[in-house]
Amino acid sequence: MNIPQRFLNLNYYLQKYLGELPPPPLHPASRQPVGPEDLTPLFPMELIKQEVSVDEFVDIPDEVREIYKLYRPSPLIRAKRLEKALKTPARIYYKYEGVSPAGSHKLNTALVQAYYSKKEGVKRLVTETGAGQWGSALALATKFFGLKCLVYMVKISFEQKPYRRVVMELFDAKVVPSPSKKTRVGRSFLKQYPRTHGSLGMAIAEAIEVAAGDEATKYSLGSVLNHVLLHQTVIGLEAKDQFKALGDEPDVVIGCCGGGSNFSGLAFPFLVDKLSGKKPNRRFVGVEPSSCASMSKGEYRYDFGDTGQQTPLLKMETLGSDFVPPPIHAGGLRYHGIAPTLAFLHQKKLVEAKAYDQVSVFRAAQEFAHSEGVIPAPESAHAIKAAIDEALRCRRQRKAETIIFNLSGHGLLDLKGYEDFLAGSLR
Amino acid sequence: MNIPQRFLNLNYYLQKYLGELPPPPLHPASRQPVGPEDLTPLFPMELIKQEVSVDEFVDIPDEVREIYKLYRPSPLIRAKRLEKALKTPARIYYKYEGVSPAGSHKLNTALVQAYYSKKEGVKRLVTETGAGQWGSALALATKFFGLKCLVYMVKISFEQKPYRRVVMELFDAKVVPSPSKKTRVGRSFLKQYPRTHGSLGMAIAEAIEVAAGDEATKYSLGSVLNHVLLHQTVIGLEAKDQFKALGDEPDVVIGCCGGGSNFSGLAFPFLVDKLSGKKPNRRFVGVEPSSCASMSKGEYRYDFGDTGQQTPLLKMETLGSDFVPPPIHAGGLRYHGIAPTLAFLHQKKLVEAKAYDQVSVFRAAQEFAHSEGVIPAPESAHAIKAAIDEALRCRRQRKAETIIFNLSGHGLLDLKGYEDFLAGSLR
Repeated sequence: MNIPQRFLNLNYYLQKYLGELPPPPLHPASRQPVGPEDLTPLFPMELIKQEVSVDEFVDIPDEVREIYKLYRPSPLIRAKRLEKALKTPARIYYKYEGVSPAGSHKLNTALVQAYYSKKEGVKRLVTETGAGQWGSALALATKFFGLKCLVYMVKISFEQKPYRRVVMELFDAKVVPSPSKKTRVGRSFLKQYPRTHGSLGMAIAEAIEVAAGDEATKYSLGSVLNHVLLHQTVIGLEAKDQFKALGDEPDVVIGCCGGGSNFSGLAFPFLVDKLSGKKPNRRFVGVEPSSCASMSKGEYRYDFGDTGQQTPLLKMETLGSDFVPPPIHAGGLRYHGIAPTLAFLHQKKLVEAKAYDQVSVFRAAQEFAHSEGVIPAPESAHAIKAAIDEALRCRRQRKAETIIFNLSGHGLLDLKGYEDFLAGSLR
Repeated sequence: MNIPQRFLNLNYYLQKYLGELPPPPLHPASRQPVGPEDLTPLFPMELIKQEVSVDEFVDIPDEVREIYKLYRPSPLIRAKRLEKALKTPARIYYKYEGVSPAGSHKLNTALVQAYYSKKEGVKRLVTETGAGQWGSALALATKFFGLKCLVYMVKISFEQKPYRRVVMELFDAKVVPSPSKKTRVGRSFLKQYPRTHGSLGMAIAEAIEVAAGDEATKYSLGSVLNHVLLHQTVIGLEAKDQFKALGDEPDVVIGCCGGGSNFSGLAFPFLVDKLSGKKPNRRFVGVEPSSCASMSKGEYRYDFGDTGQQTPLLKMETLGSDFVPPPIHAGGLRYHGIAPTLAFLHQKKLVEAKAYDQVSVFRAAQEFAHSEGVIPAPESAHAIKAAIDEALRCRRQRKAETIIFNLSGHGLLDLKGYEDFLAGSLR
């Protein structure tokens, strides 16, 4: 199996089959669509182009494909032992992105973002990270392409998850606990909330301030935006080829949703067949934590992408940009909104949403680990829980459906959550 | 590429080409070779047979191969980015065993041991673990085969490395800090050294006492013995096939050595060509920490396998069974001896030994991570250091040799060592 040469752009197919695209980002003041000139202080031009592209495919740079070879194609594994444990006639497959050296799918886009930044003369990328999956992926990608990397890490994670920080520092990234005294906005947060543990919203605000104030520095985001979802389609494109080689194809496609990039990356190439009418009954299930369920419980409206209310307005399903999710262990799913494209697809009933509490999610994670050996990231375990529920439905209905879920990352740096689960102290 | 059907037994080739086998284990009292009847309280009969077999091959049970499919064949990766960074004409390959769900090569033998134990009616396996690589592999293997698992974990690791313990407990193993009050020998250690942090020697003693005292429980060891080395030859057999497919073959074969199983597993299938005269100049390099260098600095003599001096006498290169190595981060290499077969090969000058201090080893680990993205286990990083040195020799000598090393595990549960390294506080 080969690594795909091109990413797949869903917007081309939405245009073609629905004659409609998700509503564009707006200026908060003018409420007019933002243009490239509004985004150039933050992003390299090639990524801005990809953000609004309606071309069917976008080339994957050779330099990125060369690095993809370190871990791609990622394996598509049939979870036979899990099927047996569940006594289900369903075939359960998982696409395992945890084989990436960064431990998750996040590296797929981090490499592309670092590559184009380097190509356009950027010297440094700045970003925020919560639990640290995205920060470690960007740290590695910038190291590979010879860029500097600055990560604002939510203070409580910085203190409680020292090992994610060690990973980033091993790749020479500079990691700063947020809020910090290094930015104007950070100082104002510290003045306003002197004892704050920080939040993703504050960290984004600091990162954006740094990027906007330094021409050699750009900002990098790990989910939500079109170009990030685009880069993740390498997952679904590979899976489609792998299914073809196996002579099978999925009836149900499942992924966990924070900002939505890993689910979208797996789903979009398979969604094309639903849009075209070739597979009208194929189902797509995005899985959220019930404590932060933007698709399941949010409103479909324009909202800010960050808690600092500094970004353009995005048409999302949102719990409100001031919503503060409880401190669940799936830190990567603690986002108040969802990618505009996914919100649009959910509204069109092309994608379903499901939500689970974290105790049932960790229980599913352990069942999976017992069968397949892999300890999943708490985020990915949401997809496992939904896959198990679909497999049990197949048992009840005596249907031999094919289920695929994205195992977006391993949980080896999230063992505190498992410790709490085993001790019975999870809420 | 397929998973091998059979393990390769080096003893067959030693018999054939050297006409000589490594000296057998002896009774400490009688100094006569031990027989099967001495070992049955501790090991299942099939493993005892494998321990003394001189057959050329030993079948891999189908049930084990089925589970191997979850992570085998493990990838053989050319470290092109590292070659470039070193400006070497050498080709550097690594066999990556960190893809195992247990995170290291240890699962290769744990599965076989659990399988035969189950088959012979054993209900529970008991073992010891230091840092926890072996303990987590056996916990997973016993879970897969429906056995109970009891792990005596060196007390200081139990307290300082809670995440390895969480991994074992997630797979339903019972983990007891050693020395414990649960065994006679544990109570005597506690009486003698009330404030001890424990040691591998004490933990082995507790595990052996439990196995010897309960018919339904057997003891399981993660290195040193012939049958363990035999099971690890799956690594080298795969690598040989992978090289064939690439049209290349190694001039230098490298692995780190604690008890010696991961190095032996990679090396033995390639060593056959040296013994047969087909590849007389192929080199084999076992790499040790300079603070615990049994091959480089030990004496070749009969010694106990454990600090408690309870095992049969093994003809090893040994630093003395009472030697207490300093607390380096490569906990898996803190063993006073080396597998009898490896000691024999070293004495015959078929295998070379090299030793490095841990600061230079961590520096090599970081260089590797910067080039290849993978954070290696501190143990495996010893092999990386030697591979880099060989590649630099090739640069000086302008030789385009082919180097392979075994990347026996990832370092994601060993980040404390990297934290100390980055902070400059490693000794």
